[in-house]
Amino acid sequence: MRPQIVLFGDSITAQSFRSGGWGADLADTYSRKADIVNRGFGGYNTRWALFLLHHLFPLGSATPPIATTIFFGANDAALSGRTSERQHVPVDEYKENLRRMVQHLKECSPTMLIVLITPPPINEEGRKEYARSLYGDMAMELPERTNETAGIYAEKCVELARELDLPSVNLWSKMQETEGWQEKFLSDGLHLTKEGSAVVYQEVVRVFSESCLSASKMPYDFPHHSKIDPANPGKAFQQQCMAE
Amino acid sequence: MRPQIVLFGDSITAQSFRSGGWGADLADTYSRKADIVNRGFGGYNTRWALFLLHHLFPLGSATPPIATTIFFGANDAALSGRTSERQHVPVDEYKENLRRMVQHLKECSPTMLIVLITPPPINEEGRKEYARSLYGDMAMELPERTNETAGIYAEKCVELARELDLPSVNLWSKMQETEGWQEKFLSDGLHLTKEGSAVVYQEVVRVFSESCLSASKMPYDFPHHSKIDPANPGKAFQQQCMAE
Repeated sequence: MRPQIVLFGDSITAQSFRSGGWGADLADTYSRKADIVNRGFGGYNTRWALFLLHHLFPLGSATPPIATTIFFGANDAALSGRTSERQHVPVDEYKENLRRMVQHLKECSPTMLIVLITPPPINEEGRKEYARSLYGDMAMELPERTNETAGIYAEKCVELARELDLPSVNLWSKMQETEGWQEKFLSDGLHLTKEGSAVVYQEVVRVFSESCLSASKMPYDFPHHSKIDPANPGKAFQQQCMAE
Repeated sequence: MRPQIVLFGDSITAQSFRSGGWGADLADTYSRKADIVNRGFGGYNTRWALFLLHHLFPLGSATPPIATTIFFGANDAALSGRTSERQHVPVDEYKENLRRMVQHLKECSPTMLIVLITPPPINEEGRKEYARSLYGDMAMELPERTNETAGIYAEKCVELARELDLPSVNLWSKMQETEGWQEKFLSDGLHLTKEGSAVVYQEVVRVFSESCLSASKMPYDFPHHSKIDPANPGKAFQQQCMAE
């Protein structure tokens, strides 16, 4: 049957099937080639996500995913002592939690393509505006996330990918290459606009393609309709089954 | 694990994860509640789709889908003697093929919610323009699909749903209730614009909700992040597992 590609992450993954989202775009690109499975959990940090590992990726599965993106850090990087501190995870623990995720996935399937994605940059002004829209004058003056801290988490994520020889997407760096990234790519200083989602999509497709997971090179799961002989439709299906 | 909702159909289903597509919108609506699985096969008619049934919906599966939409007819209704005649299936056979699909799905799971969707209406002018854009002066003057014929197939689909006491979406009728449906809902006289896709989304969500499959009433697959105690995160996961 059709192989699975799992998107494992926080709200930025959970929301990836919204209109113009990177998950939906991947699903369209891999149409009839692979199923894109959304395993995004809004608000989760890596510490909490570890509780999900064995449920989402059971050991001994006969059909483990062929690829998984691991996309956490935006919540881990919430600052201590600020409004989102309950989500905070120290950066060294963040890295070790990612390592445990990778180890588990490798145990599920040594051939699984694992791609680490760093948290996006933070537009602190955007976060403050968002806080004011929620809490008005009660909003804290100090942002609950800073771009500098997100960058430290991004660096740890990329460092781990290098250590484990895994492909990675440094979204924090990549987005900041574009003038006006603050508003162009981020809707509330943290979550993605359609343009921001397009960056994730392009980067993931690039990494997948470089790792021999290009949709254009993958076979259709059943005959293309143009290969079916209307006078003898069964033939195309028999051939496909024999080839498998 | 998370239940599955399968979208089984032709290109209008296959393309449903394009930006603003009804499949992606369903996936977003059922995020963390159910997986929306795209089983759309561009160009397929019901006769060819029957070859897929046992592959896509194996008997004896421990986890059959909780719901399936069956959305064929646009290709079956292609006219004999015109450019798309290879896809043509006589209307009575179309109805019997749909019946066989339903019977098979019921055999897979007697509790599966099965929703029949009729083909959309046809904008014959749009089809002609599309043919001219492909073949120029070589394009046949006569359209390969007509709205009247699509309506006959739609009626057979709804008739079968009534016979089998299944919910259905009469997309052919529904779309024509709106002034300017020809351009508003159809991009090339047959496939859906974003607005057309929104009609399918709304109708499917309505039918699902009327059949006790409302996303808002379905449980999250794991604790909502607000229910996790940062001092003792394991507790929320234990409780969730015990509740299942």
